[in-house]
Amino acid sequence: MSDRLAITYRLTCSPGEAPEEKARGIALEQTVELPADCVPAEVLESVVGRIESLEADGDRHLARISYPAEAIGAELPQLVNLVFGNISMKAGIRIEEIGWPPSVLESLPGPGHGIDGLRRLCGVSESRPLLCAALKPLGLTGGELADLCRELALAGVDIVKDDHSLADQSWAPFDERVTLCQHAVAEANRESGGSTLYFPNLTGELGDIRGRLDLIRRAGCRGVMLSPMVLGLQVVRALADMSELAIVGHPALTGSFFAPDHGIAPEVLLGDVFRLIGCDGVVYPNVGGRFVLDRRDCLAINQRLRGPLGDHRPAFPVPGGGIDTARIGEWTERYGPETIFLIGTSLYRQADLGAAARALVAALGRKVRNGS
Amino acid sequence: MSDRLAITYRLTCSPGEAPEEKARGIALEQTVELPADCVPAEVLESVVGRIESLEADGDRHLARISYPAEAIGAELPQLVNLVFGNISMKAGIRIEEIGWPPSVLESLPGPGHGIDGLRRLCGVSESRPLLCAALKPLGLTGGELADLCRELALAGVDIVKDDHSLADQSWAPFDERVTLCQHAVAEANRESGGSTLYFPNLTGELGDIRGRLDLIRRAGCRGVMLSPMVLGLQVVRALADMSELAIVGHPALTGSFFAPDHGIAPEVLLGDVFRLIGCDGVVYPNVGGRFVLDRRDCLAINQRLRGPLGDHRPAFPVPGGGIDTARIGEWTERYGPETIFLIGTSLYRQADLGAAARALVAALGRKVRNGS
Repeated sequence: MSDRLAITYRLTCSPGEAPEEKARGIALEQTVELPADCVPAEVLESVVGRIESLEADGDRHLARISYPAEAIGAELPQLVNLVFGNISMKAGIRIEEIGWPPSVLESLPGPGHGIDGLRRLCGVSESRPLLCAALKPLGLTGGELADLCRELALAGVDIVKDDHSLADQSWAPFDERVTLCQHAVAEANRESGGSTLYFPNLTGELGDIRGRLDLIRRAGCRGVMLSPMVLGLQVVRALADMSELAIVGHPALTGSFFAPDHGIAPEVLLGDVFRLIGCDGVVYPNVGGRFVLDRRDCLAINQRLRGPLGDHRPAFPVPGGGIDTARIGEWTERYGPETIFLIGTSLYRQADLGAAARALVAALGRKVRNGS
Repeated sequence: MSDRLAITYRLTCSPGEAPEEKARGIALEQTVELPADCVPAEVLESVVGRIESLEADGDRHLARISYPAEAIGAELPQLVNLVFGNISMKAGIRIEEIGWPPSVLESLPGPGHGIDGLRRLCGVSESRPLLCAALKPLGLTGGELADLCRELALAGVDIVKDDHSLADQSWAPFDERVTLCQHAVAEANRESGGSTLYFPNLTGELGDIRGRLDLIRRAGCRGVMLSPMVLGLQVVRALADMSELAIVGHPALTGSFFAPDHGIAPEVLLGDVFRLIGCDGVVYPNVGGRFVLDRRDCLAINQRLRGPLGDHRPAFPVPGGGIDTARIGEWTERYGPETIFLIGTSLYRQADLGAAARALVAALGRKVRNGS
């Protein structure tokens, strides 16, 4: 098993479907795409997935199937394909866990900064969660967004990040927005002695992304946000390889994988995968907000981002939704200090954005002084 | 409405959830990500999605919401994000149809060859479906795969394509496989006077893809297969822009979007979207095979690939699964001549691959001579 990829699937069988057959079908589908009797014996032995275990779990089954790392080669797209390519089109298959082989762990960059590095970038040495505010809405001008940046930075928010819908629209073109917002944050830091960071949303056609990355660096930003499922996982991995910027991953488009009986467990996709391709922090929709993840999912994502994963640095969970001044202490107790709390709506609901942000910063500080 | 993106969603409301509120939530979520009362009036008017209609459809609802094309800017990732980014993480939302604005239609490449162009590349002027054979399984050497290529080409198959799991594994490294397979097909064509094409599977890390594309061209291939959801849609779009090769899109990883009450209708994703980003043909799992699409889905995909879509060329549907010598006539009647039939398992089930391929070619020819 030393260099095999071991995937645990939860199988939901339809009437008349045998779990053994379903597991065998997966092992074949994800490798040779042929029935076993059409496959040469040596290929069957060396290439096709091997069923390591199959057990009942209530009215479902858990199948653990291992694949030779050789079936991946050294590239992320084929890894993704092997994990869920064709079986995404079969019913009743959900990936619950992936045991990553050393060769895969070593071939992927992982977080370039990790929790400690991102904390250092933010100038936060004490053990407390970081506070990240989303810059919105789409439709404001670059100047208006920069004004918000200034208020949020002066209030002492650790990170101000673009909303993920801020791309390169005419209301606030990318170059102008990034330049103005970063300038506003830097100026506010000079005035206040603070160290707020601005993370723009990096998106764009393939031919434009590298130029935008250069502009972000030249402007003086220390990190970016991007959406791995929208951009392509290997695009993000390449950006992680070529840049020293911190990366916060956004979950746009991932929700399709989170069906109860189909897809990939959120902690595997947002936890393991996003961390492996280079995210230092991963945004997810917090339980109790307007999205589908539940309490268990959120805790599992936190655990996977922070826990052991080869030699890779831990990454920050970045829960967003349902976090406000009244509840930030409770969330800090639940999620612990190695968390970035993402605040959006609860800030913009207040008439005075700066005051609302200061109240959040103060509430987080009180919590810390109280010892949590 | 002239330059607005109009999306029709099928809404499945949970108990107590009002369809009006759900539709309004989508319109806000996909643009400003704020409640309406937190959004400046002019942004509410010019940016937020507009509910054009909302009607009951059995126990569900159909909502048509339009968005200004300006909210996209000129880039595919933000288009994808606007279409399904955040709402992928909300329950009970399925995109049934997209009305594309002229600006989006004009900004995307569409098929570079289309049905007529791909037919010309294959040297098939008569009105009949094309026959495509999948090269498999993973685990064979480049030489063994090339031997299969030779047999299939001599049998008169129109296109031989790599299985989508053939990447750059040690059993058959990419460069070697492509070179040997293309050579085998070219040699067989010289012997037989045929015009079979070999389409390798193009995959790889971002930094490797362009080099592989160059190798494919230098080897003399006229097309490639690739998996847009695995590589990233804008990676495929960029490849379509930079290359004159025909592109066949593979549906790996798309199945997560095809839940009954969630996701994107297969004909929108595999039909409209894959065609717009540059696919000349789109593989899909045929009804009756081992995957989830039904008869309606397959016919709808065919229709969307071939029907009007701005000024773009029509693309070939490439159904795979359940097609063999006995049934190819029936499938030709159902799907018509503007189809590429993808044959895999039914070929490899036979002891003599070449004979099996010849029988299929003959069956297709008989069908044509009989006038279908």
